[in-house]
Amino acid sequence: MTILRLGHRPSRDVRVSTHLLLAARALGARRAIYTGVRDPGLEESVRKVCADWGGEFTVEHASSWRRVVREWQGKVVHLTMYGLPICDCLEQIRGDPSEKLLVVVGGSKVPGEVYGLADWNIAVTGQPHSEVSALAVFLHELYEGRELLLASPGARLKVVPMAHGKRIKH
Amino acid sequence: MTILRLGHRPSRDVRVSTHLLLAARALGARRAIYTGVRDPGLEESVRKVCADWGGEFTVEHASSWRRVVREWQGKVVHLTMYGLPICDCLEQIRGDPSEKLLVVVGGSKVPGEVYGLADWNIAVTGQPHSEVSALAVFLHELYEGRELLLASPGARLKVVPMAHGKRIKH
Repeated sequence: MTILRLGHRPSRDVRVSTHLLLAARALGARRAIYTGVRDPGLEESVRKVCADWGGEFTVEHASSWRRVVREWQGKVVHLTMYGLPICDCLEQIRGDPSEKLLVVVGGSKVPGEVYGLADWNIAVTGQPHSEVSALAVFLHELYEGRELLLASPGARLKVVPMAHGKRIKH
Repeated sequence: MTILRLGHRPSRDVRVSTHLLLAARALGARRAIYTGVRDPGLEESVRKVCADWGGEFTVEHASSWRRVVREWQGKVVHLTMYGLPICDCLEQIRGDPSEKLLVVVGGSKVPGEVYGLADWNIAVTGQPHSEVSALAVFLHELYEGRELLLASPGARLKVVPMAHGKRIKH
């Protein structure tokens, strides 16, 4: 599972893109590609989280989203409020688990071409909200909650779950 | 269901807070309160979405999160990576649907006191990601997916779901 984040703008999007990539990582994706302006600060902050909290997750920049989508060896899902309801598409998407999935997530302006190139355009509600929440619900539905129990091999830090308080194991 | 967003800073958080409030609205919350610096631009952009896309959702500023939490007539959930796994708490939270729920969502630095005042501290994974994705998964789990089918009465705009393309009904 790879996430493709479109049209990153370091000045405006750095926090939302960071949240998006960390959500992708925490909820079971293994790899992210982003287009738009290359942002070493964004990459570094994600790498730092991976170094501390473990698991395998990589982030890389690509200059052409079109090339990434066209050359993808597998299926392409585009998350958009204009798409079909997520519940109507999940069974089909899960249908062939051997297919590698590319999940395209918009930035500011999504080129119209994306809608045509995607195998599925999927809406997490037809309401405007956030690519971060849309991706979270999509991954949670796709993995049926199993992603919440993922281990993160190689972690230097680990939370000890508590009813009240904060504890980290080093 | 009310969301309490802590410690908003207009300069740094405006986009993430906007995403958070819109995700709250789209996924079934009715009301949001935020603390930190009052931000008329944030309130206005959420109100504009409500005017266009319908439904009942209000956002207001409060100067003291402590007062909001202490005076809350119902139960308080705090979403934090340090809390107990969400799956272990949902049944209890759903237990009494007559209880009004306040869902506290952190900003930059969450005061330690919050962990003590909350009835439940709940983790959507013990990994660092985003308050937007954490809230999305929490609401999706709490409402068991029913929030995806909510109608938005009074909407001026409505998406016509499409397999490929964009269509809005005015």
